Amino acid sequence: MKVEVHFTIPEVEPAELAGATAVVVDILRATSSLATALARGAKAIYPSPSTEEALRLAQSLGREDTLLCGERRGLMIEGYDLGNSPLEFTADAVKGKRLIMNTTNGTRALVAVQPADTVMAAAFLNLRAVADELLEREPERLVVLCAGREDGFALEDAVCAGMLLALMENRGASMEADDSARAALSLASTHSVSESFLASTEAGKGLLELGMGKDLQWCAQTDVLSLVPVLRDRALVPLRSDRT
Amino acid sequence: MKVEVHFTIPEVEPAELAGATAVVVDILRATSSLATALARGAKAIYPSPSTEEALRLAQSLGREDTLLCGERRGLMIEGYDLGNSPLEFTADAVKGKRLIMNTTNGTRALVAVQPADTVMAAAFLNLRAVADELLEREPERLVVLCAGREDGFALEDAVCAGMLLALMENRGASMEADDSARAALSLASTHSVSESFLASTEAGKGLLELGMGKDLQWCAQTDVLSLVPVLRDRALVPLRSDRT
Repeated sequence: MKVEVHFTIPEVEPAELAGATAVVVDILRATSSLATALARGAKAIYPSPSTEEALRLAQSLGREDTLLCGERRGLMIEGYDLGNSPLEFTADAVKGKRLIMNTTNGTRALVAVQPADTVMAAAFLNLRAVADELLEREPERLVVLCAGREDGFALEDAVCAGMLLALMENRGASMEADDSARAALSLASTHSVSESFLASTEAGKGLLELGMGKDLQWCAQTDVLSLVPVLRDRALVPLRSDRT
Repeated sequence: MKVEVHFTIPEVEPAELAGATAVVVDILRATSSLATALARGAKAIYPSPSTEEALRLAQSLGREDTLLCGERRGLMIEGYDLGNSPLEFTADAVKGKRLIMNTTNGTRALVAVQPADTVMAAAFLNLRAVADELLEREPERLVVLCAGREDGFALEDAVCAGMLLALMENRGASMEADDSARAALSLASTHSVSESFLASTEAGKGLLELGMGKDLQWCAQTDVLSLVPVLRDRALVPLRSDRT
C-alpha cells in the first residue's frame, strides 16, 4: 500500500486522487464532531466549503430535518442551528437529521478529497474503526489529509495520522510511506494523546481561550466510537452502527 | 523567542514577515550548494525565482564574472554554466564570481522570505554556525522555512530545522515553539543524519536515480562549513569567513 500524508490542504491535488482512498483528519474539531454526530443518530452530514454553499444546499434539501452547523474562528455562524462543538451533537439535537457542516478547515479538506474513490473521516474517537476498515479494504493508495490550521500544520492532526498508520503497520499492513507519512509515524511514537496534549497545541489553546475546554476532553478520547464516516453522494454516512 | 517552522513554501505569508528573522533550509540541495559555493570563494549568490528572471538578472549584472546555476528536476538547465550539485562549486569554478541560482524549490523559498528583516540559509553543513549567529542575535521572531519538495513536505528539511532549534535550545535559548516547531524538534530527536538517511528520503531517492549519490554524501556532513549565508541587497553573502 502506498501511503501519503499531507499536513495542509493546499498540498493535495484533487485531480490526482482518482483511484485513491482518502482519509481526512481534523481533530479540533470537524472530524471529531461529525463522527460524534453520526454516532448520535444523524442520518447524513454534508460537508460544505463555504457559508454561501451551505445556505444554498440547505434550501435545496429543505429546512425540515436539516440543520446548519459550523464555525468561523471557533464560534457558531450567525443564522446556523449548531456550532462545531461535538458536545452540541446530542441525540436530542441530531437524531434523524441531515446536517450541513461548514467549518474553517475540516469541511474544506473533505471537499478537496472528493475526487478520491473512497473518502473517510478519522479522529482519535474512531481511530481503530478506521484502521480496521482500511485493513479490510487494503487500498493500493492511501492519502491521509490533515486539515491543519489555516493552511498551516496542526500537531494533533499529524499525530492522529501517524497513530492511524502505526495501528495498521502493527497489524501487518505493508506500507510504502512517503516522507510525510514517515514523519507522522515518528510524531505518533513521540506523543501520546491526552486532554493536556490537546491543550498544548495551537488549536487547543484557541479553544481554551473560547472557554471550550470540554471539547478537548471529549476529542482526546481514543476508540470510543466504532463507526467510520464515509462519503456517499456528497454526504458522510456511518459505515457501521455505533457500538458504544 | 517566538519560533515558527513552515514545512512548505505556500504556508509562508511574505507580507507578514516584517521584523522577523528567516532561515531557509533546502538540504537537497539549494542551501547545501550555496553554502558550499560561498565557502569556495563565490562573492555573492542571487537567488532567482524563475529561469526568465535569472537570464534577465544575468544580463543586467553582465555575463563577465557571473555564472548561471540551477536545476529543473535535478538536472542542469540548458544554457546554464553550472547545475545545482554542491560538488560542482569548486574554488576553480566559483572563486570571485557572482552566481545567479535558480532551483525548483530552494531559491523560491529564499525569494518568498525576502520581506523578513534578516534572511539566512542553513544546511547540515553549516548548522552550528547558523545556530551561533541566531543565539547571538536573539531575534524576537524566528521563522524557519523548509523548502520541501514541489510544495510538499521533505523529511530531511524538517529534521534539519529541528536540529537547528535543538542546538539553540540546548544552549539555553528560550523558545516559544509553534506546532510545527514542536514537530520539527520531535523529528530531530528521532532521526540522525547520515548518507543513508538522506538516501531514504524522497529527494534523496530522486538524486540516486540521477546518479548523484555523491551529493548525498556531501550534504549529510554536519558542521564542516562555518559560514552563514545572509541576504544583502538581494544576494546571499558569507557572514563569516570559512574556517575549514
